[in-house]
Amino acid sequence: MALVRRSDRPGLDRLVDEIEHSGGYAAGYIMDAVKEGAIETLIETVESDLGAIDVCVFNLGAQFGNLSLAETSLERFELAWRLTSMALFRVAKSLLPKMVERGGGTLLVTSATAAMRGNKGQLAHTSAIGGRRLLCQALSAEFAPQNIHISHIVVDGAVDSPDTLGRMIGRDRLAEYKHSLGQGKYRLLEPGHIADTYFHLSQQHPSAWTFEADLRTHQDLPWWNSP
Amino acid sequence: MALVRRSDRPGLDRLVDEIEHSGGYAAGYIMDAVKEGAIETLIETVESDLGAIDVCVFNLGAQFGNLSLAETSLERFELAWRLTSMALFRVAKSLLPKMVERGGGTLLVTSATAAMRGNKGQLAHTSAIGGRRLLCQALSAEFAPQNIHISHIVVDGAVDSPDTLGRMIGRDRLAEYKHSLGQGKYRLLEPGHIADTYFHLSQQHPSAWTFEADLRTHQDLPWWNSP
Amino acid sequence: MALVRRSDRPGLDRLVDEIEHSGGYAAGYIMDAVKEGAIETLIETVESDLGAIDVCVFNLGAQFGNLSLAETSLERFELAWRLTSMALFRVAKSLLPKMVERGGGTLLVTSATAAMRGNKGQLAHTSAIGGRRLLCQALSAEFAPQNIHISHIVVDGAVDSPDTLGRMIGRDRLAEYKHSLGQGKYRLLEPGHIADTYFHLSQQHPSAWTFEADLRTHQDLPWWNSP
Amino acid sequence: MALVRRSDRPGLDRLVDEIEHSGGYAAGYIMDAVKEGAIETLIETVESDLGAIDVCVFNLGAQFGNLSLAETSLERFELAWRLTSMALFRVAKSLLPKMVERGGGTLLVTSATAAMRGNKGQLAHTSAIGGRRLLCQALSAEFAPQNIHISHIVVDGAVDSPDTLGRMIGRDRLAEYKHSLGQGKYRLLEPGHIADTYFHLSQQHPSAWTFEADLRTHQDLPWWNSP
Repeated sequence: MALVRRSDRPGLDRLVDEIEHSGGYAAGYIMDAVKEGAIETLIETVESDLGAIDVCVFNLGAQFGNLSLAETSLERFELAWRLTSMALFRVAKSLLPKMVERGGGTLLVTSATAAMRGNKGQLAHTSAIGGRRLLCQALSAEFAPQNIHISHIVVDGAVDSPDTLGRMIGRDRLAEYKHSLGQGKYRLLEPGHIADTYFHLSQQHPSAWTFEADLRTHQDLPWWNSP
Repeated sequence: MALVRRSDRPGLDRLVDEIEHSGGYAAGYIMDAVKEGAIETLIETVESDLGAIDVCVFNLGAQFGNLSLAETSLERFELAWRLTSMALFRVAKSLLPKMVERGGGTLLVTSATAAMRGNKGQLAHTSAIGGRRLLCQALSAEFAPQNIHISHIVVDGAVDSPDTLGRMIGRDRLAEYKHSLGQGKYRLLEPGHIADTYFHLSQQHPSAWTFEADLRTHQDLPWWNSP
Repeated sequence: MALVRRSDRPGLDRLVDEIEHSGGYAAGYIMDAVKEGAIETLIETVESDLGAIDVCVFNLGAQFGNLSLAETSLERFELAWRLTSMALFRVAKSLLPKMVERGGGTLLVTSATAAMRGNKGQLAHTSAIGGRRLLCQALSAEFAPQNIHISHIVVDGAVDSPDTLGRMIGRDRLAEYKHSLGQGKYRLLEPGHIADTYFHLSQQHPSAWTFEADLRTHQDLPWWNSP
Repeated sequence: MALVRRSDRPGLDRLVDEIEHSGGYAAGYIMDAVKEGAIETLIETVESDLGAIDVCVFNLGAQFGNLSLAETSLERFELAWRLTSMALFRVAKSLLPKMVERGGGTLLVTSATAAMRGNKGQLAHTSAIGGRRLLCQALSAEFAPQNIHISHIVVDGAVDSPDTLGRMIGRDRLAEYKHSLGQGKYRLLEPGHIADTYFHLSQQHPSAWTFEADLRTHQDLPWWNSP
């Protein structure tokens, strides 16, 4: 298994170690997805190091928090797009032809509420990942008949992620929020249980593939409901 | 496991036998879902015969084939609604309070393309199951926080079902269509693989529930790309 | 112009008088839309009294306020459907063939937020008018090529209607709410300005018809945005 | 009135002349919307030449025809985004603050089928304008309460445009297609009738604004019913 992140080599190494100690095999890569050629090179490297990529999970997002139009620079607007829509397009250009040659493959794209509707303050994020959702549809229309399963997963809520959400709002506030409704009431999506569904999607038979599934906690209202 | 269908006692018995021979336990029931009190009584009977219903799969549809406005009688328009939207509402009225009392449960609703958009000739079907989709949303908004997982599965294509599609177009034509693209190319959703996803949905952890997932073969275009 | 409502003959007569005093011609009819044959008879009567119906505005809704599943009886669930989805279907059965014979016509359907997503407490309403939205799509797919313009207007907010909303929340509270943001800030849709768009839709040229338009005040968030 | 296009100065001048001969006032500008600073400068120039821009119609698209993933270069993918999503963002950055200062304004965004779903061969176009649709939603959430009316118009079909569609498929084929169904049956959206709806949208009262309207001919199936 290849793990890729933008920074934090020590954190990445710890994760690789954990996987190896539990009997798996993993390799960790540091990559800046907006750098020219970086995605393309990494895919070659991974395939050369570990063998053919059968399942690719694309997790990049561009949630910068709420910013007004005045606060959103052209640079940030472009960065959001480069990190999400353009980065997925580059993955597709590099990886899908290889998968087609090998007879199949799976591309799972982690998406979010902002791919479904544009909220105030989400100008850069919503246009970037809203466009990426339709990119996934167009990719699937071209590649599903060639046995490439593309799936767009709408993670519609906050994830229990000390490294990302925890850094944004503070680890203490995250933990407090997590337990605020009491035992057995989940207000944060747990990564391991998100992974259950990703694993299921990667195992679906070609006679019954899911293109889009949403995921949220039982305590969260979906994006289409207002409180 | 309780199996319910509208007719064909012998077919139902064969299925029950199959399940029992492979080590499961099943009971078969014949029920007319539009009959007053039938759904309500059946739920009581099943719970009394077999114990609490933890997972309910609601499969009723009203696909009568394409009919123009002139060909669609008021009676048929009403029947489509009684079989789908009203029947699900009655299931919810009878079953969800029991599940709430027991601390949780799962209701999986089989839906179809016509729940997403109204095609020509689908007047009765599309309004009935399109309304049912929003009924599922409103049920989920009320009951998900009470630990009832409601999921709306959009089966977006033809299912390999000799008893339903096979009866409509002929079993020979069904088999021919099924194999027309050659080995490894699926043009019909296979019930066993649909069931894989239903089983997964029934097992999702409450921190990461799916409300809606679509299912189609790798050779079929989704409803948003096709007529 | 024919005006139809369920009750309040004096109010209806006043409205007819107003129209006639300002130089128009109108006739008022009282009708119970769920009564068997009532819609069908009324359409015949209007055409016999006033001539061919060129534009029909269908305004019936079923917003009963928020009710839980326990509070929503089977009777109410059915009534919501009879008032909206079934009533429109009956209008279509009676009127569209006449319009086709005459070479064209317009059917404008007033809809609401609940046609787009199912909120908590809206079980009966959302399934009834959500289904009606897809009915409109299927009707348009059959009849637009026959020169019948069907348009589904999503009135996504509260209307300044002393007779309906005013009766629900009190006329004083309605007036207070209306002016609470100050001069020039509208929090209620004004019926006259809704009518501007209806009139525009009824005048669209067949080379550029609108099937769906939303309407809301500049101060209201659309249904897809959460606050 | 300011008219802006990328090329064809003589064509632009003819149009300005036509408007002036019929009693209007117009000025024509040539601009390359992807050039750094071009949009920003043009908005300043127009406001200095003609006065405050009250209504801005944004017409840029990126329909390059159908191209597979292999045929879609990174450059083209980026160009589609620069012409649509980024260009609108730049217009918003430059123009909306001025409108806010002046107490209001209107921004009408011409969109297309590809903003609603991603078809095969539309990778660059669909992700660019699909993202732009959600950008419009987020802009409206921020600016509608400040009296800026943003409207996203889904032109869901081919337009009778000798200069664009005519150039793509040939003017003869365009004319032939246009009349192929006979008198009174429109298969192409007529620009003058599209403009009727744009004009109506620009005149809507703030108590009843439309964010999204679709436009198509009576002979065309909507995107949700067609490939």
